[in-house]
Amino acid sequence: MRNTIAANELELKGKAARKAARKLATISADIKNTALHNVADGLKAREEEILAANEQDIANGRRRGLEEYFLDRLLLTPERLQALAHDVRGIAALPDPIGEMLDMRNMPNGLKVGKRRVPLGVIGAIYESRPNVTIDISSLCLKSGNAIILRGGSDAINSNTALATLVKDAIAGAGIPEDAVQVMETTDRAVVGQMLRAKGIIDLLIPRGSQALINRVASEATIPAITGGVGVCHTYVDRQADMDMALDIVNNAKVSRPSVCNALDTVIVHSASAQSFLPALAKRWEAIGVEMRCDTRALSMLGPSAATRAVQVTEEDWQTEHLSLTAGVRVVDSLDEALDHIEMYGSGHSEAIVTEDYAAAMRFLDEVDAGAVFVNASTRFNDGGQFGLGAEVAISTDKMHARGPMGLKELTSYKWTALGSGHIRE
Amino acid sequence: MRNTIAANELELKGKAARKAARKLATISADIKNTALHNVADGLKAREEEILAANEQDIANGRRRGLEEYFLDRLLLTPERLQALAHDVRGIAALPDPIGEMLDMRNMPNGLKVGKRRVPLGVIGAIYESRPNVTIDISSLCLKSGNAIILRGGSDAINSNTALATLVKDAIAGAGIPEDAVQVMETTDRAVVGQMLRAKGIIDLLIPRGSQALINRVASEATIPAITGGVGVCHTYVDRQADMDMALDIVNNAKVSRPSVCNALDTVIVHSASAQSFLPALAKRWEAIGVEMRCDTRALSMLGPSAATRAVQVTEEDWQTEHLSLTAGVRVVDSLDEALDHIEMYGSGHSEAIVTEDYAAAMRFLDEVDAGAVFVNASTRFNDGGQFGLGAEVAISTDKMHARGPMGLKELTSYKWTALGSGHIRE
Repeated sequence: MRNTIAANELELKGKAARKAARKLATISADIKNTALHNVADGLKAREEEILAANEQDIANGRRRGLEEYFLDRLLLTPERLQALAHDVRGIAALPDPIGEMLDMRNMPNGLKVGKRRVPLGVIGAIYESRPNVTIDISSLCLKSGNAIILRGGSDAINSNTALATLVKDAIAGAGIPEDAVQVMETTDRAVVGQMLRAKGIIDLLIPRGSQALINRVASEATIPAITGGVGVCHTYVDRQADMDMALDIVNNAKVSRPSVCNALDTVIVHSASAQSFLPALAKRWEAIGVEMRCDTRALSMLGPSAATRAVQVTEEDWQTEHLSLTAGVRVVDSLDEALDHIEMYGSGHSEAIVTEDYAAAMRFLDEVDAGAVFVNASTRFNDGGQFGLGAEVAISTDKMHARGPMGLKELTSYKWTALGSGHIRE
Repeated sequence: MRNTIAANELELKGKAARKAARKLATISADIKNTALHNVADGLKAREEEILAANEQDIANGRRRGLEEYFLDRLLLTPERLQALAHDVRGIAALPDPIGEMLDMRNMPNGLKVGKRRVPLGVIGAIYESRPNVTIDISSLCLKSGNAIILRGGSDAINSNTALATLVKDAIAGAGIPEDAVQVMETTDRAVVGQMLRAKGIIDLLIPRGSQALINRVASEATIPAITGGVGVCHTYVDRQADMDMALDIVNNAKVSRPSVCNALDTVIVHSASAQSFLPALAKRWEAIGVEMRCDTRALSMLGPSAATRAVQVTEEDWQTEHLSLTAGVRVVDSLDEALDHIEMYGSGHSEAIVTEDYAAAMRFLDEVDAGAVFVNASTRFNDGGQFGLGAEVAISTDKMHARGPMGLKELTSYKWTALGSGHIRE
């Protein structure tokens, strides 16, 4: 019964979104940018209304005993709305990806062949408690000419509805069909299952949220979906490495923002460097409060005072995305051992080597299979902004379609166009 | 029990393929090309052995009462082996897609960022009676640095085993681990189910065969898979069109090779052109024996003698990929009506307009959502060779990853590489 309601809602909204997508695909950049500025303006003009809706969600959440960190994710403030508006104007300022011609060429028979960048069509977004995703994803989809079906968490339903209404009004004000933005009202979990199998309705699914959600999408979805956002990331300090550079890079990768997916989880150190590197690292991390989870050899090299604070690493630690001030520490005797460790435990997200050795740098670049591979730089640079993409939808750990940071172009497909003058095939 | 056997075989072979893929990813073009020439040489040197294995399959097929057209697909001959060898040498002659750097740039902070083209990893191929696919797909995967797991039809098991052994020996002779090519020996259908869900084992699934197979993969696969090869294709003859050009293009699209996916299924004619165009088309097609399945208005315009041969079209005809000398015929009063018909019935494969009107051509290019869109050219050009890709793996009707003809590049992914000199993030 519940399944039927969700399926019906999805089908109806999917049809409306598909129709709007056909229009949206050929709308000019000027109109899309006007709509985006309308969204940004609306975040200011409707501030009171949005915050009131958000207060309801917060009050409901408190009543249901949600934890503080969860309520913080749910919370909207005037400052947060202002930051959102700023990001939306940033998306408006980016070049329009749609219509770009790729690989245009004249074939020997005179047929003019090329690939034209086009929107994917209808994007589905499944997210949890953060209502800002409603604005964020809608804006990126709008700019890339895609319609969107939003399915946010039930805890944020009032906030999401207010924000989605704002977006619908903003795009309608620019002459874009408001059906381009659809909100699933059934907050039942059955909706997620329907969306995962919505062949012909949703062209690409973007899950944003917990690892449990990402895993569910990866294992159940029969439509294209992005897997991403989970990074078990390593930095390998080679035999020949500048010790100061290595300290700075390893420290930056771990502590500059421990809660994100491109932060360091395990540092791997060549035994020839470990004797000098590990005590220095332990000293630096003592001040910051990073817990070092060491293998036996690493423990023996930390020096007596650091060794008392460090703990023995477990097999589970190697597999864990810590998202906190915790790091695995392993000593190896060769680059090969480091590569094997990364292959075994890495999630294909962000991997770095610190080395002065040209051949080691080349091998690491060649052999590590990950979305982003770094030489003498922090894994924290695996980010759409840092790689010059402007906005970022997600960081993909898939190999199909898009890998690493996904910007506007990664929300597009292409169609071949062929211009002839009566061409027929022999 | 059967499921378990298949799963075990797949897991073991998947592991071996993955290990080989890691090696294959960094092997030079010279070595890969040597292996390909070894394959081509082997097709000559082992001709007798291969034909003997094929005779067994043919004999078994006859015993089981397989139909003649099926046996013909299964059949290998010296000429067919020679043609295969020629194609393999053609693949060797193509440039190596691996290692190409895309979008290399210096970021403002001096970090050198780019995308390096890399193999996808392990490709899975599910195919039916044609043993040539064993050579064809293995060669394309080898050239693009991918390992492969082959699952051919049980009817061709002896031929496939002989051909796969040849490929394994050929690549081993060039110094490539023979584990890069794996053949599933369990010919049970359970294997297909396992392959469709082989997350972590297979990176991309290529189904080659009947529409039933393609549909099963599209609806059940939870790993990335290509949907393609099914084309309900239209040619629209506009109000202002050169009648001779239109006749040539429509005729070419239908009759030059009716059994392929880019052949015409329905011709849509503007009412202003239909009075002159349809009788001329009926005359041309009478000689060739094309059956016209017409809507009521088209029937009334054919002229009395053609009208007696033509039949009334059904709703099912509009949805059908005919693969034979049969064509739906529809008369419309506007470009919009033609666009609606194509959106409703097209499979997003190949669509063409014949027109002298610039605005109509632009609208058709903008609004038709298909892998390839043609102006004044036959849909038969939707082909990897005709679009300059060299070899072709499949023609995709998906929007994710690759659309339209897929060549070697479409069997690749990329990884971001970032070269720093001690870069850390603020």
